[in-house]
Amino acid sequence: MIDAAKRASAGRITAVIPYYAYARSDKKDQPRVPITARLVANLIETAGADRVLTLELHAGQIQGFFNVPLDELSAIPNLANHFNARNVKSNIVVVATDAGDAKRARNMANRLDAPIAIVEKVRIGNQERVEAATLIGDVRDRTAIIVDDEIGTGGTVIATADTLRNHGARDIYCYAAHPVLAGKATEILEKSTIKELVVTDSLPVPPAKMGTKTSVVSVAPILGEAIQRIHSGTSVGAMFNGGGT
Amino acid sequence: MIDAAKRASAGRITAVIPYYAYARSDKKDQPRVPITARLVANLIETAGADRVLTLELHAGQIQGFFNVPLDELSAIPNLANHFNARNVKSNIVVVATDAGDAKRARNMANRLDAPIAIVEKVRIGNQERVEAATLIGDVRDRTAIIVDDEIGTGGTVIATADTLRNHGARDIYCYAAHPVLAGKATEILEKSTIKELVVTDSLPVPPAKMGTKTSVVSVAPILGEAIQRIHSGTSVGAMFNGGGT
Amino acid sequence: MIDAAKRASAGRITAVIPYYAYARSDKKDQPRVPITARLVANLIETAGADRVLTLELHAGQIQGFFNVPLDELSAIPNLANHFNARNVKSNIVVVATDAGDAKRARNMANRLDAPIAIVEKVRIGNQERVEAATLIGDVRDRTAIIVDDEIGTGGTVIATADTLRNHGARDIYCYAAHPVLAGKATEILEKSTIKELVVTDSLPVPPAKMGTKTSVVSVAPILGEAIQRIHSGTSVGAMFNGGGT
Amino acid sequence: MIDAAKRASAGRITAVIPYYAYARSDKKDQPRVPITARLVANLIETAGADRVLTLELHAGQIQGFFNVPLDELSAIPNLANHFNARNVKSNIVVVATDAGDAKRARNMANRLDAPIAIVEKVRIGNQERVEAATLIGDVRDRTAIIVDDEIGTGGTVIATADTLRNHGARDIYCYAAHPVLAGKATEILEKSTIKELVVTDSLPVPPAKMGTKTSVVSVAPILGEAIQRIHSGTSVGAMFNGGGT
Amino acid sequence: MIDAAKRASAGRITAVIPYYAYARSDKKDQPRVPITARLVANLIETAGADRVLTLELHAGQIQGFFNVPLDELSAIPNLANHFNARNVKSNIVVVATDAGDAKRARNMANRLDAPIAIVEKVRIGNQERVEAATLIGDVRDRTAIIVDDEIGTGGTVIATADTLRNHGARDIYCYAAHPVLAGKATEILEKSTIKELVVTDSLPVPPAKMGTKTSVVSVAPILGEAIQRIHSGTSVGAMFNGGGT
Amino acid sequence: MIDAAKRASAGRITAVIPYYAYARSDKKDQPRVPITARLVANLIETAGADRVLTLELHAGQIQGFFNVPLDELSAIPNLANHFNARNVKSNIVVVATDAGDAKRARNMANRLDAPIAIVEKVRIGNQERVEAATLIGDVRDRTAIIVDDEIGTGGTVIATADTLRNHGARDIYCYAAHPVLAGKATEILEKSTIKELVVTDSLPVPPAKMGTKTSVVSVAPILGEAIQRIHSGTSVGAMFNGGGT
Repeated sequence: MIDAAKRASAGRITAVIPYYAYARSDKKDQPRVPITARLVANLIETAGADRVLTLELHAGQIQGFFNVPLDELSAIPNLANHFNARNVKSNIVVVATDAGDAKRARNMANRLDAPIAIVEKVRIGNQERVEAATLIGDVRDRTAIIVDDEIGTGGTVIATADTLRNHGARDIYCYAAHPVLAGKATEILEKSTIKELVVTDSLPVPPAKMGTKTSVVSVAPILGEAIQRIHSGTSVGAMFNGGGT
Repeated sequence: MIDAAKRASAGRITAVIPYYAYARSDKKDQPRVPITARLVANLIETAGADRVLTLELHAGQIQGFFNVPLDELSAIPNLANHFNARNVKSNIVVVATDAGDAKRARNMANRLDAPIAIVEKVRIGNQERVEAATLIGDVRDRTAIIVDDEIGTGGTVIATADTLRNHGARDIYCYAAHPVLAGKATEILEKSTIKELVVTDSLPVPPAKMGTKTSVVSVAPILGEAIQRIHSGTSVGAMFNGGGT
Repeated sequence: MIDAAKRASAGRITAVIPYYAYARSDKKDQPRVPITARLVANLIETAGADRVLTLELHAGQIQGFFNVPLDELSAIPNLANHFNARNVKSNIVVVATDAGDAKRARNMANRLDAPIAIVEKVRIGNQERVEAATLIGDVRDRTAIIVDDEIGTGGTVIATADTLRNHGARDIYCYAAHPVLAGKATEILEKSTIKELVVTDSLPVPPAKMGTKTSVVSVAPILGEAIQRIHSGTSVGAMFNGGGT
Repeated sequence: MIDAAKRASAGRITAVIPYYAYARSDKKDQPRVPITARLVANLIETAGADRVLTLELHAGQIQGFFNVPLDELSAIPNLANHFNARNVKSNIVVVATDAGDAKRARNMANRLDAPIAIVEKVRIGNQERVEAATLIGDVRDRTAIIVDDEIGTGGTVIATADTLRNHGARDIYCYAAHPVLAGKATEILEKSTIKELVVTDSLPVPPAKMGTKTSVVSVAPILGEAIQRIHSGTSVGAMFNGGGT
Repeated sequence: MIDAAKRASAGRITAVIPYYAYARSDKKDQPRVPITARLVANLIETAGADRVLTLELHAGQIQGFFNVPLDELSAIPNLANHFNARNVKSNIVVVATDAGDAKRARNMANRLDAPIAIVEKVRIGNQERVEAATLIGDVRDRTAIIVDDEIGTGGTVIATADTLRNHGARDIYCYAAHPVLAGKATEILEKSTIKELVVTDSLPVPPAKMGTKTSVVSVAPILGEAIQRIHSGTSVGAMFNGGGT
Repeated sequence: MIDAAKRASAGRITAVIPYYAYARSDKKDQPRVPITARLVANLIETAGADRVLTLELHAGQIQGFFNVPLDELSAIPNLANHFNARNVKSNIVVVATDAGDAKRARNMANRLDAPIAIVEKVRIGNQERVEAATLIGDVRDRTAIIVDDEIGTGGTVIATADTLRNHGARDIYCYAAHPVLAGKATEILEKSTIKELVVTDSLPVPPAKMGTKTSVVSVAPILGEAIQRIHSGTSVGAMFNGGGT
């Protein structure tokens, strides 16, 4: 699409990418692996994008994988509003599934006036099996909201929920921006003790993957607003408190 | 230097950069700021480096700011060995000064067979004053080791130490890879309750900045080893367990 | 894979691409379309390939979509040998399915000492339905060998065969380098009057797509020979008469 | 000129190249040759052209040698109009001098409601002597119009005309977009049985090269129209039926 | 700053660089040295500048180190006006400190209706000591105006003045565009027989470096005028007689 | 040639360019002109040269127009040796035809143990007519050797010789590296008072342009030596005293 627009002499091309795939491949955490998130950025620039608009990146540093201007929108305000409508007023804790992802949990927690906790996952070698091991922080008798950028196979979330349950958490919710829902994710989540899975429509959730516990919050309004602002040359950053371009 | 080597027809140019400056400017966490760590990567590549060797980056994703191969060495094994020589056997906790930096603390903790804790700092607006607010995890009656990538003005470390003290930590050490020691950092650290500041020689510490509590651990051997391996075309990654190129 | 090899400091990266996909999108034959074959070349170079080895491109000009050296192997000698084993000695005609592709038919015809004919297809607007309309040349009472770079949906081949049949051709064979076999291609070809479909293993043909009339000629030996020559720095062009690098 | 415009801070630079030279060097049809048509594209982009406007390329794929938008105009409508004014109503055949060039003949034939034929030339080794050998299609008792992108030395056209004559063609015309007219081309064509040579003014024909049989059709109006459309940002593709940008 | 502007989607970025540093490193006049002036140009372009505005380059060829448009303003008119206000009407000579720099002296001389002379400096090996050796031209009983692009350590100017004095020059002035004033330059110039040092404010002269003989001529008005012209898309070259863009 | 070598997978391509054309277009000395010498450098790099070997550039800064390593050989030693064979022992002066070119004269003068003089040419507007106006330095009763990088139309040299004659010079020689000899240069020089024109074979001098006063000094040996050194990876700079790579 970018090439077609470029060769048709488009004045300016903005790639709108609600879900930035391969974002988790953002560093060499073992030898002989690619940094696919950087490669994808190179490919998008090579194709001819002048600017990129995306949502809730796995890591903020991925912004720096691009040379062209990039606006990263946050799904957290929308997700927080959804939970606030639950009217759960007290004893909340927001839980990150990884220490490196605690900033996202902190953003959510600030909007819910809640503390955060972290469940550290420990990967055993290169095996698929992910084992959530340690809890940092306090979740006993609290309503726990797991916050993540994406739901892949669901394995991490389930393991995190188990750990939370073992440490005395009450209702456990899962809020994630991108519903990748790979493999049997929906099935696994349906059977789990997780009370509700809330995702955005950054990716379409096919009917077959819509579980009874799944809710979809639309990010179309903020994407639309950002596109409008890019088109008219006004500030995208002004949409958020101290964020964006 | 790179330009001189390039114009003198060097066969291959590897930039050895023990301390990668501007690394903390790695994303747009507010509008209208540069991502200087990416800019510096572009400049180094533009000058003509074919490969980069560096040490303990602020964030692993900075690897992806480069298109050329980059080897990131870790200072954690050397720092862990230094502490192990203290023969403090039990009741240790490794403390990250930022949730986003917990992976470095986890690496240290694994080598000391210790749990980790996190002190979340909260920046009030854009002001200089950094206020360490929340502790996640348990430090009471434990020997705390604050682990960071660099010591700048020392403000974050002092604030973290105060929080740890308030929560009942006993001896507090600070281990950091890069001794930037800006402004009055040495002075402030000397007066603080921190028992020892351990840094590497990734940057030279001028005599005037060597406090009585400061120890320097040399990373020259691992840099030398990596240079040798790059020169002879053998694996740098093999120097670490599951890390590097 | 290229990015992984590049970041692991590979001395040189050669992309071996037996089937170069999107090759048919090689020019703007209508407004507002991309030239995807060029885009893919840019992406491969951006990823870091130093050289490309491929087989039987849709158009020779795609070589020029690359800045890096490219070796294009030909599947025609292997396909011609396969037909020669049939011992059909006389009254052969090689048929191109498109006037622009007549050079491939000519290469085949030279090896079989046969004349060529061309069936011109006429696309009605932008519709999917392809109608093979005009025959240029003489096929009456001849064994016809349709030669093409790839078999997609099979529509073009079937329409060409019908035209040949209507003009009095006897046995009709189809020789194509790349077995894309999209959709119901195998089914359609099975039911058709085509006597044999001969393809190479540039793409794997899954068992479900192997029809009773399908034969696979291996190009592994020539790819292997070329890889060996690239590795040892000897001439790839010398593998062919007046062709290649 | 491009460099001068760029350094004088031109807002946008469009290179108008009615005759794209070196276009016939568009693939490696033998080892150790350049692909000069791609090289020239690189040089034009390196100099700073933002867009290219050209006419009747040797092969449509040359569009893909450029990364910048390229508009290729067709000279066929103008050439067809010129022949239509001849009022030769029936028994016409349009002849391509090369199977790979049949699409251009087909475009002409569609406008004259005529069939096409192809004369395949066979090059003997690398020698200069071109021998037109085989006719595909039927030309007996027809008025033949040879269509080509350019007239170089005239050798191909003469050989094609001889073949047509031998197969019973009546009047033979030659329509070509680009009057390169190298060496003794005009002289040779004057003495030939070709009735008329019709070219465009994509290249100036110096008086000394204007034979008595030569007619020049101007493409200035369509170039002017395209320049105007590029300047005002309207569609160049809309000038043609299903062609261009 | 350029990166911040780029990532904030600036429409166009012009780098205004009154003093282009490293300009004297503009060629390899000995082996194993960089051409830092080119490197700096590359870095500025890599960062994202679309255009550069600068003043009185060491050599005009540095314009060609940039691919982006560059406007070089001249400080000579302002410096000449300053001297003209001295009302020294006759017996003036303008002196270049290097044969390669005589064009700048010629520009000044034309405005003062004076001849030029050149003092050739001879560097002894790679040593710091600069020895002004030969005078070309006539300075006896004349008011001499040494013209240079920058005042570094002052060594060249002092040596030139000594040579002029030895050959009978009367009052000696020094006019230079860029007041680098490295090391003890101000001190040395104060003690010298030079009557006045006139520089521009292309670099700020800190109070401690303002000698009693130092005058500063502002180039702010011409920089402002040029910025205004770039912003409004009018000609910068028109500011000068036959110069600039 | 570069493209052919690149596409044939040459290991390394060095462009040997004894005469670097367009070198005099090395800066914008008036508005709306290109810097063709930089453009040519870009084109050579775009084509794929990894290194450049050239001879006696118009300005040393042209080295910086390249990003790839460039070795500039000097023709001065060869030219000086040729004059030394004349056995003119005393009262020599080396004359530059332009103040900006005095460094070349100085190199020659050092080898002949002679002083230098400069004839400043003044161009009247943009007209072709070049008027050599002012002499800086002393030439009376001396054997004058005009030194230049190239002989174009010969106008500058003739005007310089006239000026020298008017100021009392005796025998006048002209030594130039590159025999461009445009238009009637040879004729003009033959008729002039110049005693001998000595050039190198950086460009072939066709017999028709070999005047009775013309001598050609071969630079083949130093080019050959440099090519040999580049091939074997030894220092080109070591061929000269403090020059080269």
